[in-house]
Amino acid sequence: MALNRRDFMAGAGIISAAAATQAVAQAPALPSVRWRCTSSFPKSLDTIYGGAETLSKRVSAITGGKFQIQVFSAGEIVPAFGAADAVQNGTVECCHTASYYFVGKNKTFAFDTTLPFGLNQRQQNAWIYYGGGLALVRDFFKEYGFVSFPGGNTGVQMGGWWKKEVKTVADLKGIKFRIAGLGGEVLSRLGVVPQQIAGGDIFPSLERGVIDGAEWVGPYDDEKLGFYKVAPHYYYPGWWESNSMYSFYVAQKEWDKLPKEYQAAFEAAAAEANIDMMAEYDFKNPAALRSLITKGVKLHAFSNDIMKAAQDAAFDLYEEESAKNASFKKIYEPWKKFRDEIYLWHRVAEQTYSTFVQTNAPKKK
Amino acid sequence: MALNRRDFMAGAGIISAAAATQAVAQAPALPSVRWRCTSSFPKSLDTIYGGAETLSKRVSAITGGKFQIQVFSAGEIVPAFGAADAVQNGTVECCHTASYYFVGKNKTFAFDTTLPFGLNQRQQNAWIYYGGGLALVRDFFKEYGFVSFPGGNTGVQMGGWWKKEVKTVADLKGIKFRIAGLGGEVLSRLGVVPQQIAGGDIFPSLERGVIDGAEWVGPYDDEKLGFYKVAPHYYYPGWWESNSMYSFYVAQKEWDKLPKEYQAAFEAAAAEANIDMMAEYDFKNPAALRSLITKGVKLHAFSNDIMKAAQDAAFDLYEEESAKNASFKKIYEPWKKFRDEIYLWHRVAEQTYSTFVQTNAPKKK
Repeated sequence: MALNRRDFMAGAGIISAAAATQAVAQAPALPSVRWRCTSSFPKSLDTIYGGAETLSKRVSAITGGKFQIQVFSAGEIVPAFGAADAVQNGTVECCHTASYYFVGKNKTFAFDTTLPFGLNQRQQNAWIYYGGGLALVRDFFKEYGFVSFPGGNTGVQMGGWWKKEVKTVADLKGIKFRIAGLGGEVLSRLGVVPQQIAGGDIFPSLERGVIDGAEWVGPYDDEKLGFYKVAPHYYYPGWWESNSMYSFYVAQKEWDKLPKEYQAAFEAAAAEANIDMMAEYDFKNPAALRSLITKGVKLHAFSNDIMKAAQDAAFDLYEEESAKNASFKKIYEPWKKFRDEIYLWHRVAEQTYSTFVQTNAPKKK
Repeated sequence: MALNRRDFMAGAGIISAAAATQAVAQAPALPSVRWRCTSSFPKSLDTIYGGAETLSKRVSAITGGKFQIQVFSAGEIVPAFGAADAVQNGTVECCHTASYYFVGKNKTFAFDTTLPFGLNQRQQNAWIYYGGGLALVRDFFKEYGFVSFPGGNTGVQMGGWWKKEVKTVADLKGIKFRIAGLGGEVLSRLGVVPQQIAGGDIFPSLERGVIDGAEWVGPYDDEKLGFYKVAPHYYYPGWWESNSMYSFYVAQKEWDKLPKEYQAAFEAAAAEANIDMMAEYDFKNPAALRSLITKGVKLHAFSNDIMKAAQDAAFDLYEEESAKNASFKKIYEPWKKFRDEIYLWHRVAEQTYSTFVQTNAPKKK
């Protein structure tokens, strides 16, 4: 069979070389395209910032350098939180951002990143790619003039750094804690006073006692900022970011101008950036966690008292928002159903397996 | 700023149109390439089989149809388990398969798919993409003349269908259970008599009492084969497939002939197929599980007695294999270290979060 096939392929090779020449003569040449992508992240958050670089490099490699997307870090050409506006008003063709940065415009933005007590990374991908999530968020983004592409994730984040232990909801009263977005709103319902402070200012604020605690990302990013030196109690899980999906926004009119080949390259590269960032964090976080523990960090799980109260407060918030915000309600209702369904399944094989192996070592040899 | 920028871009447009013409004139035209990809899976396993279709469609779209990869289901041109040989001997340029099908050649193949009591899907991706896994398995595959690309996953599978309940290791003695590969070897150490039976023959074998149980994949695929009608006890988790990663094998000499652009397109499309299949299973399995439960299926977790004995037997097997198989040992040692490290981290935020939300519903409104 192998011999026959080699003969067949030798013939096919001649035919396809001729076909190729014909194809080149007939196909319209693909244009050179140069885009600018503003990232909402500083280069110091190398793994998240790297998501846009992953996409840019891949798209360039696929197109032989004809479709170039130049990445700018937060503040280089557009401030971190100006990314969505910059795409909307045509300053840049695309951005790499976290949709929940824009909950001040509309809380509906949160679904594209994460909601407190929402989905984990696998569940978010299932919802976005197959559960109708992407169609729902894109429909919402239409009014802003851009189309979104999932492009990275951190997985479940940590519950931040606290100067004092917090064991009960009563302990949270009056605590000044650096946290933004819906997580901050949920914590404020439990008595916390949420503070919005940029990454670079968190450490001095903790050191000077302006705040009593702060959340950032997870072991790898947190260790670099040195929070453990001034707030030794490291809590988990970060229920306000049970996954944190990052997105590329592309101006619809720029997207529509792209050749189909470049659209396909962008889509594949964004999916690759999505799986790649999660793998990178899962590789980097274990060593950082071990390092933090050797530095004397005290790891604590949030108590059931705090977890249950926070979960109830989160869903109170969603129900209230749904009652007054039609675009939120339109996504929340199917999202909530999807959440219940996938929890049912993941509680079975995934949870049972991972819990067993992560708490039972094989017998030592 | 927007106006200035529009002016700037209008000028840039003219420049880049000229540059594009020049680029087209100078760049060598990309050739038409036609490959055949034999899948180890039947079309009835639509989600796994679909992984190769995802890659094929994406590569074609990116290259404007110039790089075509035609997918054949198992048996169309090559038998399911002949896929690796077919790539090695040049019958096809590439295949989509599960490396652990080839543990009969060498048990080292298993690392590229899964090992009993090994990594879950996120952990496998982290190991493969960042933990050195891909370099290790590719180095091993060199002697077979192909290069591998991750291309799909099922997540933690189910523990199969059993005619009678099994509560202790003693209950496993003499049970004839359909399972292949290393999982079968581990079960045989606990008294099970493993049976290798092709997918289409499992149901009649169960019905006629030739076997006492069988494992397949998870709720979505299992429901279609109707096992619940003849073996009502459905166990979890499938510790022998705590993830099941599928791979594309590409003949090295064909890979080397590809233009860099097509290599980049293939790599991005394979990564997309990898994340896409997992999302599709996570979307399809919940409804199938719910449907199975309404049909009277009895869900059981394997007892701790069975789980612990199986885990010990699995690691006994790995230690024994390492002592006599240098290529196995070369991957096993760093794999085992990676496993311990990532479990430490995933036990913290991931496990605590998912366990909480999957077992504590928010207060009913």
